[in-house]
Amino acid sequence: MHQSDIQPFFAKWGDLPQETYCRFIYHLVPDGDARTAAAALCCESSTAMWRRHGVSEDLHTAHGAKVIGCRPLASRPGAYEGEIAHPICNFGARLPNLLTAAAGEGAFYAPGIVTVKLMDISFPDTFLQRFDGPQFGLNGLRERLGVRDRPFFVGVVKPNLGLTSAYFAPVAEAAWVGGLDLCKDDEMQADAEWSPLADRVRAAAAARDRAVAATGERKGFIANITDEVACLSERLRAAETSGADVVMLNPIWTGLSAVRQVRTLATVPIMGHFVGAAVLSRQPDFGIAAPLLIKLMRLAGCDLIAIAGFGERMRSPKEEIMASIAACLEPMGPIRPALPIPGGSDWAGTLPTLFSTIGHADFGFIAGRGIFAHPMGPKAGAISLRQAWEAIRTGETLADVATSAPELAAALTAFGSP
Amino acid sequence: MHQSDIQPFFAKWGDLPQETYCRFIYHLVPDGDARTAAAALCCESSTAMWRRHGVSEDLHTAHGAKVIGCRPLASRPGAYEGEIAHPICNFGARLPNLLTAAAGEGAFYAPGIVTVKLMDISFPDTFLQRFDGPQFGLNGLRERLGVRDRPFFVGVVKPNLGLTSAYFAPVAEAAWVGGLDLCKDDEMQADAEWSPLADRVRAAAAARDRAVAATGERKGFIANITDEVACLSERLRAAETSGADVVMLNPIWTGLSAVRQVRTLATVPIMGHFVGAAVLSRQPDFGIAAPLLIKLMRLAGCDLIAIAGFGERMRSPKEEIMASIAACLEPMGPIRPALPIPGGSDWAGTLPTLFSTIGHADFGFIAGRGIFAHPMGPKAGAISLRQAWEAIRTGETLADVATSAPELAAALTAFGSP
Repeated sequence: MHQSDIQPFFAKWGDLPQETYCRFIYHLVPDGDARTAAAALCCESSTAMWRRHGVSEDLHTAHGAKVIGCRPLASRPGAYEGEIAHPICNFGARLPNLLTAAAGEGAFYAPGIVTVKLMDISFPDTFLQRFDGPQFGLNGLRERLGVRDRPFFVGVVKPNLGLTSAYFAPVAEAAWVGGLDLCKDDEMQADAEWSPLADRVRAAAAARDRAVAATGERKGFIANITDEVACLSERLRAAETSGADVVMLNPIWTGLSAVRQVRTLATVPIMGHFVGAAVLSRQPDFGIAAPLLIKLMRLAGCDLIAIAGFGERMRSPKEEIMASIAACLEPMGPIRPALPIPGGSDWAGTLPTLFSTIGHADFGFIAGRGIFAHPMGPKAGAISLRQAWEAIRTGETLADVATSAPELAAALTAFGSP
Repeated sequence: MHQSDIQPFFAKWGDLPQETYCRFIYHLVPDGDARTAAAALCCESSTAMWRRHGVSEDLHTAHGAKVIGCRPLASRPGAYEGEIAHPICNFGARLPNLLTAAAGEGAFYAPGIVTVKLMDISFPDTFLQRFDGPQFGLNGLRERLGVRDRPFFVGVVKPNLGLTSAYFAPVAEAAWVGGLDLCKDDEMQADAEWSPLADRVRAAAAARDRAVAATGERKGFIANITDEVACLSERLRAAETSGADVVMLNPIWTGLSAVRQVRTLATVPIMGHFVGAAVLSRQPDFGIAAPLLIKLMRLAGCDLIAIAGFGERMRSPKEEIMASIAACLEPMGPIRPALPIPGGSDWAGTLPTLFSTIGHADFGFIAGRGIFAHPMGPKAGAISLRQAWEAIRTGETLADVATSAPELAAALTAFGSP
């Protein structure tokens, strides 16, 4: 770009009408001058041409994205943090259009940029007000489930594929009776010929009611309604009328705006699952940062958000997971906090470290095989989670508690010491 | 995984009921034994548990994904091509669920896999029959636009952001009169307060009609209906009733199944734009291969597909672009071919190389600034494209033709020699 073409793509944040801009943060490696590369990013993502042939006009002011910051990253030689103010009028309060602006030709096909990662987006409150966000949020979930001063205990019913509803429900029931607050479908288990959604939810809801009667605690079933977007309202209705307490989607593959569509119709909380997020976020220097994807799921209306957690298999850095948890909970204008549920390979033995790492109890503790592959069965698996929490509450070690808690002892033996 | 746990995740393709499986091809780098890593991928993506506690059952046969091939990649030491057969009953003919299986916890959160890229998916014809695919396809587009024996000439109207409809339409009209078959909205330009979709389409359709009258050729306008999925049917209706000839979406950010929803309602062809695809596909050894994304857009129902093309700024390897073009055109059971439109930084001077690289005329040639920033204006910009095609047709060089073609000569001067 010529130097005269670059200048209109720079501004001071303080000089702009801030409520009309979103701010996009990128980490980028230029192959030449970093400020020129950042300006090229702005150009390609907004006013690649800013006047018609033969017309004296300048569309930069209203429609041009502007570099408002470009600083070397101390931690990565050669890399820069670019801060871009993008006019909201170019995309509106619409998630697919927002992502087209933030993660489109601008960022990923700009000349002079070798590698780039979209790290964060900041929104003015007037923009956030155009979204509903979570209908219930963290506090609403605590209210509905009567869970106070502790994490929510969540189980992914396993075997996740192949059980007909009549066999699925008793497995969930055992885990609820053992101490789970929420049983859920696996992200792979949606509506299937061998387990139609309405059938499964009806059977699970009856099992939930029996578990509620047996324990005196409130319980919930999370039904996976992931489907083609054309079918989502039908799936939602089927899940709700069959007794689901929460509906789940895989927003990366349905699209984030599918959550927003469900949000306008749902009478129950919505859970978003991280599946697919790694494809966008796993590379440290490229793509879209995982915490931003979580933030967008919250903005779209997820009350609960499953996050790739601390298990080794998840290959997620601790700082990233902590930032994703913060993206659920931190103040966000009028948007309610969501319940973060970091997970993947967790079991009773990982709870103490998880709790001390997070530092508070505003999270969901989720396990699959850690409950349902417990050597004494799913009820014992769920009991082992509550025993681990009791150890934390009383300040004892898991090993100490295990001497009088056979379910925890069996978990420690089967799944290894924490 | 224990050796006995691994065995059920292997099969011979010839032994399986093939019409009940899709085949996923991955390139992966294991940190240990490759076959064990591929089995772990199958396990995490399907029957992570294959029996209930205390029950003698085996859900592998019906629901387990199976390794049917695992070969070292000659071109990359340490990397393998894994071929996985995944039972269709686990996801059905539903794109979000298919992607959950193919690009979910299995591929991206399996133990023992350092890096992985989903390269391709093969579908049995019985699966493909459950999709509509393109309603018109390449042949239907040739019919509708009367374009024979040459590429389609397509222009992205620029300036792309900020022109009200009254100013937008004359720009498009000039380019149509100059020789474009199709004028289109930029991927960033959807429904906006400063250019409501219906307004813009009405103005563009009137301009198109004038251009048709002036040239005696058929012309079309491509309207960008990208929006929240809840609004797509309304946007589609607005575009169609206002006179759009094609509707465009950004499927990566609306979700691929949004295309399929629009396909069930649309009476005009659908265009899919690649924007965002790079986030998934750019890394050579990680993510999802670009040609597969194109294949899925075709399966979802796109009649025209914009592909990141040969321009340097697009950072797309030639082999990948050629594979994406093939993904539009190659036989795919009952699914019609789509029109591939590779683009990005093209202008008259890049047409000869593009045409000889592709080797046939079944493509759309698309330009933005190469038409609308032409020094003599958009009409001349469009004329310069047709002049470049005339040079190809007659076997002359661009320079020779330019001696009696001032528009081409001006393009060569302004945009550099080919």
